[in-house]
Amino acid sequence: MQHFDKDRSAEVVNARTGSDVDPRLQEVMASLVRHLHSFVAEVGLSQHEWDTAIDTLTRIGQLCSEERQEFILLSDILGVSMLVDALENQRPEPATQSTVLGPFHVAGSPVRDFDANISLDGKGEPCRFTGRVLDLEGAPIEGACVDVWSDNADGYYDVQQPGVQPQWNNRGRFITRADGRYSFRGIKPTAYPIPDDGPVGALLQKLGRHPNRPAHMHFLITASGFHDLVTHTFVAGDPFLNSDAVFGVKDSLVCTYSQVEDDRVTWQSTYDFVLAPVTG
Amino acid sequence: MQHFDKDRSAEVVNARTGSDVDPRLQEVMASLVRHLHSFVAEVGLSQHEWDTAIDTLTRIGQLCSEERQEFILLSDILGVSMLVDALENQRPEPATQSTVLGPFHVAGSPVRDFDANISLDGKGEPCRFTGRVLDLEGAPIEGACVDVWSDNADGYYDVQQPGVQPQWNNRGRFITRADGRYSFRGIKPTAYPIPDDGPVGALLQKLGRHPNRPAHMHFLITASGFHDLVTHTFVAGDPFLNSDAVFGVKDSLVCTYSQVEDDRVTWQSTYDFVLAPVTG
Repeated sequence: MQHFDKDRSAEVVNARTGSDVDPRLQEVMASLVRHLHSFVAEVGLSQHEWDTAIDTLTRIGQLCSEERQEFILLSDILGVSMLVDALENQRPEPATQSTVLGPFHVAGSPVRDFDANISLDGKGEPCRFTGRVLDLEGAPIEGACVDVWSDNADGYYDVQQPGVQPQWNNRGRFITRADGRYSFRGIKPTAYPIPDDGPVGALLQKLGRHPNRPAHMHFLITASGFHDLVTHTFVAGDPFLNSDAVFGVKDSLVCTYSQVEDDRVTWQSTYDFVLAPVTG
Repeated sequence: MQHFDKDRSAEVVNARTGSDVDPRLQEVMASLVRHLHSFVAEVGLSQHEWDTAIDTLTRIGQLCSEERQEFILLSDILGVSMLVDALENQRPEPATQSTVLGPFHVAGSPVRDFDANISLDGKGEPCRFTGRVLDLEGAPIEGACVDVWSDNADGYYDVQQPGVQPQWNNRGRFITRADGRYSFRGIKPTAYPIPDDGPVGALLQKLGRHPNRPAHMHFLITASGFHDLVTHTFVAGDPFLNSDAVFGVKDSLVCTYSQVEDDRVTWQSTYDFVLAPVTG
């Protein structure tokens, strides 16, 4: 008999798995069941709390749409997204550290000229972003694609405000020169809250946490023969650096923004990215 | 600095919880985060697997409606519903054991006369259900409400087939007599699959598990001064008794169905229920 037994409930469930099952699925599900049952037993989850959990998960699912992914937000605020990123992207020193992609990347943004301006709405403080893309030995990588995106000065990405912001506002792709250099102009990034009008925002509030992310510029850097790098650079001095709602900050990604005398920008941020080669 | 750290990721997340937070919420969420991170780290969950998980949870949420609760199904097939039930309903011997409520209970079904027939569609093998509701000392409980429901002979509950089955088909409430006795007529229960055309059904299939539940009659028994009892009686000999898709079977709930010579039924099932008093 393989009937339910409170004291070995996860074993009973996992023993039910068939014999001709994908081994990886079996491994993942067996671990999930063990940890889920351990959690429920450890806290003595009540029927009422279970009802609340079912209701919350249901509302999270029903809020998801083409424009909004509330389950990713949940994963983000629980630190799960960062943990998956850390496990997936373990690169040798001195490769640049990764951080979360976030829900606002859009593939296929315009390829723009060296030092072109991605800020199309005229808002915010003009800022130049420049630096080099290098390999582990410090040699420049020519022809790397530096895909960048950020919120505008009001704290919203273009895809959050269709019809309000110009399409591709604060987005673009730049190709590194022979010396590995990229350069583009945008705005000095501003902090913003993650969407907090749904169940995840309500949970944050109940946990006494704010929904804000420190100001950052997103980078997705790709080059033939190297691992993709998904990361941000953060603005040094931002008040939310130590309390990023999604735990994305790493010390090595905090970047000084300097005031400059220039016809076209008032700020400059310089950062070199180091990619790890695909091996084996 | 409370930045993300792969090796103590759950601690970093839980340290972010505010100071003026409901202590129980804090306890539950801290344990959830610890176990969730342990799971992710233990299996080395890949970005691709995380994508699949987000997509699956989203589709489960989007399938939920007034008529269907796919998250409850997920909880059921992972044994979580039974674990919560077991933790919530620990009663002294010889109280009848509980099992899952399931998604098909409807409050407010008709109160019917002693030995009335709940099968309104004329399908199935007529069966009498009778027995007594007793306290822990074996004394009869008069005036207990015995709320019962089952699928029809085709394996569907009335609420799954509105317009096809008569309303309240195979449902009713019965009040125990002075001797604690209940009696009603219905049909000998039939096994049926849980709804398996969604993500939960797909998961069961990938795990090499079938979606069937062994034949059972649902009972929700309430009486003043006693804990509610949510349980089933199962049909002895059912081929799915050892592989109930939702792990609801307990040995003490398996019940012999006897063939009888009677004008009105061909089967009879006798079961005495024992309620635990509310104390303190």
